Amino acid sequence: MSLHAVILAGGSGTRFWPLSRAKRPKQFLALATDRSLIVETLARVAALAPPERAWVICGKDHADLVRSELPTMLAGRVLVEPAARNTAPAIGLAAIYALHEDQQATLCVLPSDHHIANPEAFRTAVARAAAAAQDGTLITLGIKPTRAETGYGYLRRGSERGADLYAVDAFVEKPDAKTAERYFSDPAYSWNAGIFIFRADAILKAIERNLPVLHHGLMTMAASIGKPDEAATLAEAFPRLPAISIDYGVMEPEGKLGHLAQVPGDFGWSDVGSFDALSDVKALDARGNLLAGDAFAIDCDNTILLGENGRTLAGVGLRDLIVVDAGDALLVLPRDRAQDVRAIVEALKAAGRHDKL
Amino acid sequence: MSLHAVILAGGSGTRFWPLSRAKRPKQFLALATDRSLIVETLARVAALAPPERAWVICGKDHADLVRSELPTMLAGRVLVEPAARNTAPAIGLAAIYALHEDQQATLCVLPSDHHIANPEAFRTAVARAAAAAQDGTLITLGIKPTRAETGYGYLRRGSERGADLYAVDAFVEKPDAKTAERYFSDPAYSWNAGIFIFRADAILKAIERNLPVLHHGLMTMAASIGKPDEAATLAEAFPRLPAISIDYGVMEPEGKLGHLAQVPGDFGWSDVGSFDALSDVKALDARGNLLAGDAFAIDCDNTILLGENGRTLAGVGLRDLIVVDAGDALLVLPRDRAQDVRAIVEALKAAGRHDKL
Repeated sequence: MSLHAVILAGGSGTRFWPLSRAKRPKQFLALATDRSLIVETLARVAALAPPERAWVICGKDHADLVRSELPTMLAGRVLVEPAARNTAPAIGLAAIYALHEDQQATLCVLPSDHHIANPEAFRTAVARAAAAAQDGTLITLGIKPTRAETGYGYLRRGSERGADLYAVDAFVEKPDAKTAERYFSDPAYSWNAGIFIFRADAILKAIERNLPVLHHGLMTMAASIGKPDEAATLAEAFPRLPAISIDYGVMEPEGKLGHLAQVPGDFGWSDVGSFDALSDVKALDARGNLLAGDAFAIDCDNTILLGENGRTLAGVGLRDLIVVDAGDALLVLPRDRAQDVRAIVEALKAAGRHDKL
Repeated sequence: MSLHAVILAGGSGTRFWPLSRAKRPKQFLALATDRSLIVETLARVAALAPPERAWVICGKDHADLVRSELPTMLAGRVLVEPAARNTAPAIGLAAIYALHEDQQATLCVLPSDHHIANPEAFRTAVARAAAAAQDGTLITLGIKPTRAETGYGYLRRGSERGADLYAVDAFVEKPDAKTAERYFSDPAYSWNAGIFIFRADAILKAIERNLPVLHHGLMTMAASIGKPDEAATLAEAFPRLPAISIDYGVMEPEGKLGHLAQVPGDFGWSDVGSFDALSDVKALDARGNLLAGDAFAIDCDNTILLGENGRTLAGVGLRDLIVVDAGDALLVLPRDRAQDVRAIVEALKAAGRHDKL
């Protein structure tokens, strides 16, 4: 068994504006440690997947940034999508490339913009999953919930299929608060972190079963790998692939066919989904404030003050507020409005202010 | 009668940090209009006191800034205090210089860091006061209150002494909220704006009566004006003058002697005492927000967003908040904590951060 890391870096979210910009999305920000999330993602899995088995899939606009952030990446292993087509085509692309080099390739698909507090426990779960995947089962990691979270999708556990291995009964949509409380007290429910482990040949078979048009496109591209028309075929075929997520397009239907299993995980996972989530992954002061850069907080509670570039950021008497000073823009909003960062991004777009996006 | 404007520019307050800094105090900021408060102060009185009768008193650190901000000031009319000694010595200094040139000099003493919405009404009141001052009476303008303000001192009106002229019964300290309500509903009470009109010879006599040590020092300096030892005498004598305010040292005791009168004024005066006060002097949007620079406010109310230098300042869901982005520092605090800006300044001092003061 040889494990290949497949890091999905095509995201272009706006929830960390103004820290994140179109040219530098969230995965390239050092949100949890002093290294960017994508650098941590690769480092975390390096002991299982050395550089010759590490792949990154990203968009054209970020290929140079990926190469400079991840200097250990080998040439040809940064797969650049000619157009964004969601996760099923991205993972399919990684599968055909990995399989071209390694018929035994087992893929560990990793979002590039999450944080994991306990990498050792993470690697243990991945290794268990990789072993379980050798019979062709598609494996997902089910994260043990630490709170009644309404912002995540859940996995419902089915019958036991081995040591630390369970069937996945269902993918469950983000719940309301009351339902989330119920899930939190029921061990059958775990968070879906979007971390998948499967053999490359198995995921391609699953794609063939569920998304034949995608499979056909992938086979066209696979046939050109290493040939003179490889780049032209990718540029031609990839943008025409159906844009669909691996969860919705493959995992959910495969779950119904009994081909999907989960390995439980409890390793301090966070999707670092908004500024509000930073207090889960960073050290706080005695009054619950998160201070970065040259920040002065006087009589503040549960407040996030993120400064940079030597600019002084002073707060007095603030409660549950987020202040982010980033280059040529500054954001202030209450923590319970953290999801509304996108409203600012939309307003800037509407105002034609692409200089600040 | 010849009216001389005496603009007091020695202030070094911290309530507008980080807009104001030690090198550029409040009077040099364009807080109310697109010109600085001191420029507006001089312009407002220019029709009554042309350049040959305009004086500015300031500290050493700001003399160059005064000259560059006020290019119409004549040489020798920017009087530089060798040390800060409060308002009585500053006004005494202006009196001896004005008197040296003009035995009929009537002084209109003006703080340099206030705003007046209706300059025409202001000039009418000053002209009335100047006429009333010719018999040696010391005149102050009593501002008609527009709200139950606890942040100002008050004047209590006594008997009528002529058209638009009343005795001043008492200087009244800043009241508590309940007392301020009472003052607001009683026409006998007006705000003390620190605007005084008196003949130069009359204020020097009043200083002699109440502050003989100050008077002696002033006479020493007066004797040297135009002589080779003028600068040396100022440098030697001024720092040894008693540091005392004109209100406390002269006006209050003169009031008790019946030498003080007030002219009522109602001309949209504001001392622009804090960031919170800016909403009194600037245009607001429909939800009570004050936006300056490249500011985006989404679902904000009664919030002040002051940006500058092309940096974008975005607020979402804010209520009664102040955000000030100024050069290499940024301040965020609730409006009802506006007076606590000094706490930040003190914290910076304590941290040895003179680079940001």
